[in-house]
Amino acid sequence: MGNDHPDSKLFPHATGAAAQMVKEHEGEEPLKLFSGWFCPFVQRALLVLLEKNIPFQYIEVNPYHKPESLLKLNPRGLVPTLEYDQKPLYESTVICEFLEEAYPSATPHLMPSDPYTRARTRIWTDFVTSRIIPAFHRFLQCQPSSSANIDDVRGEFLDKLREFTQAMDPDGPYFLGKEVSMIDLILAPWAIRLWVFDHFKGGLNIPEGKIWDRWGKWLGAVEKRESVVKTTSEKEHYLPIYQRYADDTAQSELAKATRAGKGVP
Amino acid sequence: MGNDHPDSKLFPHATGAAAQMVKEHEGEEPLKLFSGWFCPFVQRALLVLLEKNIPFQYIEVNPYHKPESLLKLNPRGLVPTLEYDQKPLYESTVICEFLEEAYPSATPHLMPSDPYTRARTRIWTDFVTSRIIPAFHRFLQCQPSSSANIDDVRGEFLDKLREFTQAMDPDGPYFLGKEVSMIDLILAPWAIRLWVFDHFKGGLNIPEGKIWDRWGKWLGAVEKRESVVKTTSEKEHYLPIYQRYADDTAQSELAKATRAGKGVP
Repeated sequence: MGNDHPDSKLFPHATGAAAQMVKEHEGEEPLKLFSGWFCPFVQRALLVLLEKNIPFQYIEVNPYHKPESLLKLNPRGLVPTLEYDQKPLYESTVICEFLEEAYPSATPHLMPSDPYTRARTRIWTDFVTSRIIPAFHRFLQCQPSSSANIDDVRGEFLDKLREFTQAMDPDGPYFLGKEVSMIDLILAPWAIRLWVFDHFKGGLNIPEGKIWDRWGKWLGAVEKRESVVKTTSEKEHYLPIYQRYADDTAQSELAKATRAGKGVP
Repeated sequence: MGNDHPDSKLFPHATGAAAQMVKEHEGEEPLKLFSGWFCPFVQRALLVLLEKNIPFQYIEVNPYHKPESLLKLNPRGLVPTLEYDQKPLYESTVICEFLEEAYPSATPHLMPSDPYTRARTRIWTDFVTSRIIPAFHRFLQCQPSSSANIDDVRGEFLDKLREFTQAMDPDGPYFLGKEVSMIDLILAPWAIRLWVFDHFKGGLNIPEGKIWDRWGKWLGAVEKRESVVKTTSEKEHYLPIYQRYADDTAQSELAKATRAGKGVP
């Protein structure tokens, strides 16, 4: 796509704490993560890499001007793409679980050791991708002219967050209890972007109640993780990107799928 | 839903080779699979159970008259639901991978031991669920009155099968080579239902060519697996079910999602 693409004017690199993190991971490494600084799917992979302290090289990709080195690995040129042993891997959840399995001595272990709890992690991972993220985008992209009412799409999104929260360990603070695990990192990038609803959509309007206290406890713990802080750029640079979603003029595959009433493409 | 539900008249139990398999697995076992004899998602779980020779109890569920024992485990009452240690698991791909991990001494091992190949299995598993199955249903449910042309939806479906086939080991016969593995079982239930396109939609019209020879080799090997044969009922009983899909009057969640232009719900 050319320079006239409306999303091509996005700010070109990470800022704030994330700029420092990028600087620390610019050096050549065999393990490479092709990234977009603003992309929550990329952030999932970064969180796992940082939590487990796995050496990697960060490569910033403008998704509308994709480098040949990426297209050779992955003709669709998606981020995140991981280069491992000169071979490609893509899809953020696959990359996250791969990092856990390919670096068994890197701690903490983010997947539970018990097969049943591991299966539950996969069920809730799928819930985040197939329920929470589409509801996030239906809410964010909802327009006064939409057939859906803003209060309905807000309510639908809150229902998904409630369902997720109800599955948590009651004490926490994390989903499975005292320790952070994969499922926390899978949702974290969207959880820390909830300010977009305050900024663009009149607020998330979280109700009172015990379940929402539990949600707040989880969110408070996740927001403070060093990995989360270190992968977050300055709000002012996310703003123009989310403005286009909020106006429903964004042209990303996810934005277009949401407009067509579909899920994560 | 009441008796007036159009899908509630479906034939109530497995027939043919599958009836014999059910009979062999009717006895009480701690591991229970809540099943629908016609459901390809259930068949995925059955294939893994049979391939690994894991003892289990088969429980037939009429999805429109769900038993309390299932609803207690899984309020949405979906099949497949697995009862393990009196706890529920659902989502066919999660169940399949769980069975592999929870019964580590049951052979053959269906997930590759190498983390990279395991990650590739997950990528192609997602491709089956998010690309092949929706394209299968868009083709099957396409009507003369649809906005999409039958040749276009057929071509789109063949494109997905071609892409899957191109990722296979060149010799095979299975996806990863000489031995069957999880990814073969993940697609098998739809692969052995391709006759529905001959019956209802004027044929699949597979082109000539080397890639389609490879597809044929894979399909031939998969169709002959004992696990596949033993989980297949008589064609005449699938026919009225697929008739409703072919007429686009089926009321399953997947049928409705396809009508709405969405993916696997």
